Amino acid sequence: MGFFEYFSKSQLEQIHEATLTIMETTGLVFAYAPARDVFARAGCKIDGHRVFFPKKLVEEQIKKAPAQFTLYARNPEKNVVIGGDHIAFMPCYGAPFVNDMDKGRRQGTLEDFNNFAKLACKIPYMDITGGMMTEPNDIPIAHRNAERINSSMIFSDKPFMGAGTGAKDAEQTIEMASIVFGSREQMAEKPPFVSILCSLTPLGYDDKMCGGIMAYAKAGMPQLISSLTIAGATGPVTMEGTLVVQNAEILAGIALTQLVREGTPVIFAGSSSAAAMRYGTLSIGAPEMAVNTAATAQMGRFYNLPVRGGGALTDSKTVDSQAAYESMMSMMMATMSGINFVLHSAGILEGYITASYEKFIIDSEICGMCRRIKRGEDITTEKLALDVIRQVGPGGEYLTNLHTFKHFKQELYAPILEERDNFSSWTTKGSLTMEQRANAKYKELLNTYEEPDMDKAVRKDLDAYMLRIRTA
Amino acid sequence: MGFFEYFSKSQLEQIHEATLTIMETTGLVFAYAPARDVFARAGCKIDGHRVFFPKKLVEEQIKKAPAQFTLYARNPEKNVVIGGDHIAFMPCYGAPFVNDMDKGRRQGTLEDFNNFAKLACKIPYMDITGGMMTEPNDIPIAHRNAERINSSMIFSDKPFMGAGTGAKDAEQTIEMASIVFGSREQMAEKPPFVSILCSLTPLGYDDKMCGGIMAYAKAGMPQLISSLTIAGATGPVTMEGTLVVQNAEILAGIALTQLVREGTPVIFAGSSSAAAMRYGTLSIGAPEMAVNTAATAQMGRFYNLPVRGGGALTDSKTVDSQAAYESMMSMMMATMSGINFVLHSAGILEGYITASYEKFIIDSEICGMCRRIKRGEDITTEKLALDVIRQVGPGGEYLTNLHTFKHFKQELYAPILEERDNFSSWTTKGSLTMEQRANAKYKELLNTYEEPDMDKAVRKDLDAYMLRIRTA
Repeated sequence: MGFFEYFSKSQLEQIHEATLTIMETTGLVFAYAPARDVFARAGCKIDGHRVFFPKKLVEEQIKKAPAQFTLYARNPEKNVVIGGDHIAFMPCYGAPFVNDMDKGRRQGTLEDFNNFAKLACKIPYMDITGGMMTEPNDIPIAHRNAERINSSMIFSDKPFMGAGTGAKDAEQTIEMASIVFGSREQMAEKPPFVSILCSLTPLGYDDKMCGGIMAYAKAGMPQLISSLTIAGATGPVTMEGTLVVQNAEILAGIALTQLVREGTPVIFAGSSSAAAMRYGTLSIGAPEMAVNTAATAQMGRFYNLPVRGGGALTDSKTVDSQAAYESMMSMMMATMSGINFVLHSAGILEGYITASYEKFIIDSEICGMCRRIKRGEDITTEKLALDVIRQVGPGGEYLTNLHTFKHFKQELYAPILEERDNFSSWTTKGSLTMEQRANAKYKELLNTYEEPDMDKAVRKDLDAYMLRIRTA
Repeated sequence: MGFFEYFSKSQLEQIHEATLTIMETTGLVFAYAPARDVFARAGCKIDGHRVFFPKKLVEEQIKKAPAQFTLYARNPEKNVVIGGDHIAFMPCYGAPFVNDMDKGRRQGTLEDFNNFAKLACKIPYMDITGGMMTEPNDIPIAHRNAERINSSMIFSDKPFMGAGTGAKDAEQTIEMASIVFGSREQMAEKPPFVSILCSLTPLGYDDKMCGGIMAYAKAGMPQLISSLTIAGATGPVTMEGTLVVQNAEILAGIALTQLVREGTPVIFAGSSSAAAMRYGTLSIGAPEMAVNTAATAQMGRFYNLPVRGGGALTDSKTVDSQAAYESMMSMMMATMSGINFVLHSAGILEGYITASYEKFIIDSEICGMCRRIKRGEDITTEKLALDVIRQVGPGGEYLTNLHTFKHFKQELYAPILEERDNFSSWTTKGSLTMEQRANAKYKELLNTYEEPDMDKAVRKDLDAYMLRIRTA
């Protein structure tokens, strides 16, 4: 399967040149002295908090990061390759609220977080358990990171996401992961988790994010270096201009990782979109989000780096048509443009504010469909099936043909929840909407969930760690 | 903007070769003697109803059709170019039922047809008024074609769709269009409508469709030569094999048009999808539909012909998340793969069975978003906005910048109905779903609809024609 290309090669070069010009002449603010020290030692000019990047330095550093790497799961069958022709899906991230049909919108709790971890473990289209799927508002802030990491490791045997909240939580993530996955050296060889660190747009990084970036980089842990520039608010209203701002932020962050530890795996991560001009707020369901996803995919490929973009993104306040088509728009663009890592692949509502149980299931179906499309087609004798076409001939039927029987399970996507029956059967079954079916499905998945096995000694150490945290 | 490419050039050639082999050795059934006579005269071997196509003949005929043509609207500002880098949207086609939130699912009537024509006229993202948007079940079958054509011409000033129901209705369409658009010769120069004629899959054409194809071709009227092959039912269960069957059907139909009248404008039209194996029915919301859309776009380009595919297609029985994301899937694929003509861009529910008022509006929003994405980006000094980025600098804001004010209307898509406000404002406004907002919007559009002017003498002739039909 080819990749959808929005820009020509020479346009990409123009964007790259414009980015380097901004980095060199306007510079970026780094509100963290250790980061500025690293840049100063590498030859950047520093003025107060502002760092000016020589073009050559940026180009050299970007080349040091690997084009592809693997996340190693507790269950080796669930290892995930990040980069190349691969696409990895993981759930929602950072939502303070949760929502379901029965109880409505409310603050997220640790139980909600655990439920989403269990769903992510069980749903085959989710590749990574996820990170801050919802905020566990019912437990002390000081315990939250440890609880999230603990739940991510025990309720799922897929790779997971570490803290994206600063140096201290990054260190804690590494420490806790080490209980399950071995020494720091072993984890640097076979990283079990990835984290997301974000710029402070436009053209800056705050102290917490710099601290997180440097802590993970020191340990050789993979990270997304992410920019969410808002066209018309934190970037020019043109998507082209916003792309330059996004690009400068990502490249500056990646340069920092490589200066701290050459070869640290990074993901070129762009999630910029446009302002809803009428309200002055961010819109993540806008078509400009899809435009940026395509542009980000191409820029990441241009730098030969794994790339993040897209997601099941929506501005809708409820699980409705708007939520569904906006989500599919960005998921399709991610799939076709060659995105490798899709954060927010399931559950997001209200522009990142809420994680919905029903939408988690509906978006999982979208992920399954996108994976089917991404698989591509093969022009082989068996697939072209000329013998079968000849044998059936004009006016014949293929339903009862052996070739159909032999291939249908591999060839045709089998839906989780989609309604393909006729109207009268659907009516007989209760005229259920997709939202109602998703409500029943998430409960069924949670009711039949079984915790994946974990080595007893490891679990004991982890429990002891958590006991110390909880009673500190 | 580039086109998404599913297959490599050599794979396309393999599909083409496989298709020609099937056409030559297995042949296609044409259940219409005049069509067989045309093929016989051109050198095809005939056996009963079966026609075997020499490879060279097919390749020669395909080359005679134009790569691009224009549909001429009653209002010249609404002319539509079909082919090249263009994409044209038009509403649902062929639905016996209609549906809205207030009255539920019911048989379509002429009033429903007229309402959809008015909506198509008024909504800027619909390029063509449409054809059989719903079946007018409340009027005699013998009058239906005339009523549809009459309504399409008076309630909208955009190009429209002619009968796809056989030679007699094709003749009537030409005759009625001639009242408004001038002589047959004038219309052959500047065609005001396009029609869809379909194969009888697998590998055949019935007498009615052949009659329609030949009637329109004689008059030089543009037509879609369309195949809907169902993987696992009327084609091999592999999308590759189904593509060969689809391709053979379309090429055979196009060869007929060019043998009747060289240079007749045609659209290479593929709407194949997969069987829902559990029910043995067609699924148009399946990801295989998107796969076929991408493949069809590439095949059409391979033959240098305008190409039809995709649509706001769904198997859902109601306007819900499934309806929305399935629709966006195929619309996105059509947009990115280079489809030129998208039938069923608005309103379709239940796998072509029902036309929904609310979905008509929701899908129009999808069309608007796809058009924004399709527009592409420009790497210019003004768009890259380096001066603005420099001026705003790190930590600044762009909302109050002159550049934002100057460009936002052109740069950022302005939604018809999408909710981008915050949760509390949305709640204050009544917590309306997209479906509820669409219900209010279609009524508002119909209430404020104004019939486009028509020359009084022309209208008098058209009314006289309709009086004869209605009193016959």
